[in-house]
Amino acid sequence: MKRIVLLGASGSIGSQTIDVVLHHKDEFSIVAVSVGKNIEKLKMLLAKIPSIQHVCVADEQVKEVLRLEYPDKQWYSGDEGLQALAGLAEYDIFVDAVVGFRGLLPALTAIANHKVIALANKESLVAGGPLVKAALAKHQVPLYPIDSEHSAIFQCLQGNTHDSIDKLIITASGGSFRDLTREQLQDVSVEAALHHPNWNMGGRITIDSATMMNKGFEVIEAHYLFDIPYEKIDVLIHRESAIHSMVQFQDHAIIAQIGTADMRLPIQYALSYPQRLKMYNDEPFDFGKFATLHFEPASMERYPLLKLAFEVGKKGGNLGAIMNAADEEAVRLFLNKKIAFLDIETSVIKAVEGVRFIAEPTLQDIIESDAAARRFVKDMWKGAME
Amino acid sequence: MKRIVLLGASGSIGSQTIDVVLHHKDEFSIVAVSVGKNIEKLKMLLAKIPSIQHVCVADEQVKEVLRLEYPDKQWYSGDEGLQALAGLAEYDIFVDAVVGFRGLLPALTAIANHKVIALANKESLVAGGPLVKAALAKHQVPLYPIDSEHSAIFQCLQGNTHDSIDKLIITASGGSFRDLTREQLQDVSVEAALHHPNWNMGGRITIDSATMMNKGFEVIEAHYLFDIPYEKIDVLIHRESAIHSMVQFQDHAIIAQIGTADMRLPIQYALSYPQRLKMYNDEPFDFGKFATLHFEPASMERYPLLKLAFEVGKKGGNLGAIMNAADEEAVRLFLNKKIAFLDIETSVIKAVEGVRFIAEPTLQDIIESDAAARRFVKDMWKGAME
Repeated sequence: MKRIVLLGASGSIGSQTIDVVLHHKDEFSIVAVSVGKNIEKLKMLLAKIPSIQHVCVADEQVKEVLRLEYPDKQWYSGDEGLQALAGLAEYDIFVDAVVGFRGLLPALTAIANHKVIALANKESLVAGGPLVKAALAKHQVPLYPIDSEHSAIFQCLQGNTHDSIDKLIITASGGSFRDLTREQLQDVSVEAALHHPNWNMGGRITIDSATMMNKGFEVIEAHYLFDIPYEKIDVLIHRESAIHSMVQFQDHAIIAQIGTADMRLPIQYALSYPQRLKMYNDEPFDFGKFATLHFEPASMERYPLLKLAFEVGKKGGNLGAIMNAADEEAVRLFLNKKIAFLDIETSVIKAVEGVRFIAEPTLQDIIESDAAARRFVKDMWKGAME
Repeated sequence: MKRIVLLGASGSIGSQTIDVVLHHKDEFSIVAVSVGKNIEKLKMLLAKIPSIQHVCVADEQVKEVLRLEYPDKQWYSGDEGLQALAGLAEYDIFVDAVVGFRGLLPALTAIANHKVIALANKESLVAGGPLVKAALAKHQVPLYPIDSEHSAIFQCLQGNTHDSIDKLIITASGGSFRDLTREQLQDVSVEAALHHPNWNMGGRITIDSATMMNKGFEVIEAHYLFDIPYEKIDVLIHRESAIHSMVQFQDHAIIAQIGTADMRLPIQYALSYPQRLKMYNDEPFDFGKFATLHFEPASMERYPLLKLAFEVGKKGGNLGAIMNAADEEAVRLFLNKKIAFLDIETSVIKAVEGVRFIAEPTLQDIIESDAAARRFVKDMWKGAME
């Protein structure tokens, strides 16, 4: 029985993680969860999953109210609470499904606590890659990706040695605007941007798919997860998202992982690794529905944020933190209809140029760079927001 | 340094095996070869590869002549000679690239001799599957497939347990006549049949691709190689032959191997397993050239020999031997323009019905069933041949 601490239990990945766990009750139990503000969902979880003993919510006052209602549980709040959950003694797997930069610190704590890390929080690697990598090496802790592309690569690497890898091929759907030219992108609406062709995901990641910023983040994550130089990472546009990603080996064999657009597979694989448990839904991938698969190179001119991510990744330092924070702010402004779609790109590019570069940042430097990039973008569009 | 005994050195797989070995001289050396009648090629090999100490040719008198010319080599001839090579003490890997039923006995000898088996000879499993499987288990010997489809499956299985396999998905190009209806197959020529869309192979296997008999053989081979029931083996038509085959696991992940139409990869993988050596040619698979991949179910009505192979496989016994021998004779008659293309199917179906079934055949039974099926087909078309 693997005991799980789950941060971000009310989000999309968190909910699907709970779904996986509840379908494999002999394999997994959840001992701790965090949620943000979705208290209704939290109460539902507590009613359904009696094994949960530790609970963290965002707000301290809400915590105090809940403590009275559920006196048999241990209660925590805020970022300190997330840290406390990560530092618990009696568990096996730390599932980091928090969205945003706040997922980094608890990940570092769980690593120092010698727990297996199942990582959905991309900021941990995009912003904190060098710190996370050093911590994993220091504490000899394994980290498994929860993400269709990186899980695919992780699966394709099984049974192969690191030195036989020729390159990683990350597939990309191309996002909601893949059939538009850059000229046509000028006037696209928020509503159109939120309509992803293959995946049903949260708002930010859907917009990040349309700009390919998300694919850029994945390139950086892949670099850290699999210890592969950027020169050996390719991005391939594959409209159907049937092949979730691939590895080409030095003997020219390419191993690919194919599947439906269902996050339960990568979640389950991260939890059950190295085993593969039975998938409880009855809908495997159907070549009848996907009778034709398409591939085309990803153009760096069409997707400047993908190009930027490679540059940022190669240069390293605090640039990942700057790029991520600038993008998060810019996407928020776009979703609030304060800036246009192409202004997201401009914001991120300018922030990466404008915020002070630090080659070997400490954790404190990363936190400050994150804040500086957010300020930079807010300042940039101050006029538009008034 | 792995020392190799190579049967069938002058054929297509044999020649490519030598090519692989000569490009990895630090890894492999060839200590023994057999050729049939291609003495010119043999002399070339002996000049090029001084490590060859043991040589087998088909004809005894030819052997005596060569012994005088190359007195420092050990000479052998005929089926006995093949057995002698398989039984040599000082080698590591037995590469069985002989074409036809005569590859079975040496394979059994090499297994009893505790050598690693790299198998290209499909008759060993199609006709002698239960015997080979029992011998491998008894002597605890590994067998690695040299064949693009089975090598693909073998690669996809790495890092996974047998009980997590949901099904094997063998891809098929559909062969030279895949765009013709059964009515149009009535009058096709030998020349048209020999034009395979993706692979450049020998005559019989190209015809067997057009009838899908070859895919049927592969289904039976997969059953024995991977110990998978026939209900869990699917055939999928995939025109581009880019995906060489796949495995679906119980968590619904499908792992696929993609590559160029180049047999050197499966040969090299069988020799270097579990390592992957650098491929020396510089042409990895190119998604630019293969921008679209197509898939469609394989129709059992369109390909009755594929349907027959599933039935023969499930029933077992000596039926694989009968089916293989009948097909070999019928293809020979077709290539000699004695019978029409669709007569190949009729020959094989009638032989499987007409030759005596033996549920648990001995090696002697298999040999006799092979001969009986050949007689059956020859008798069937006696009129046409006069």
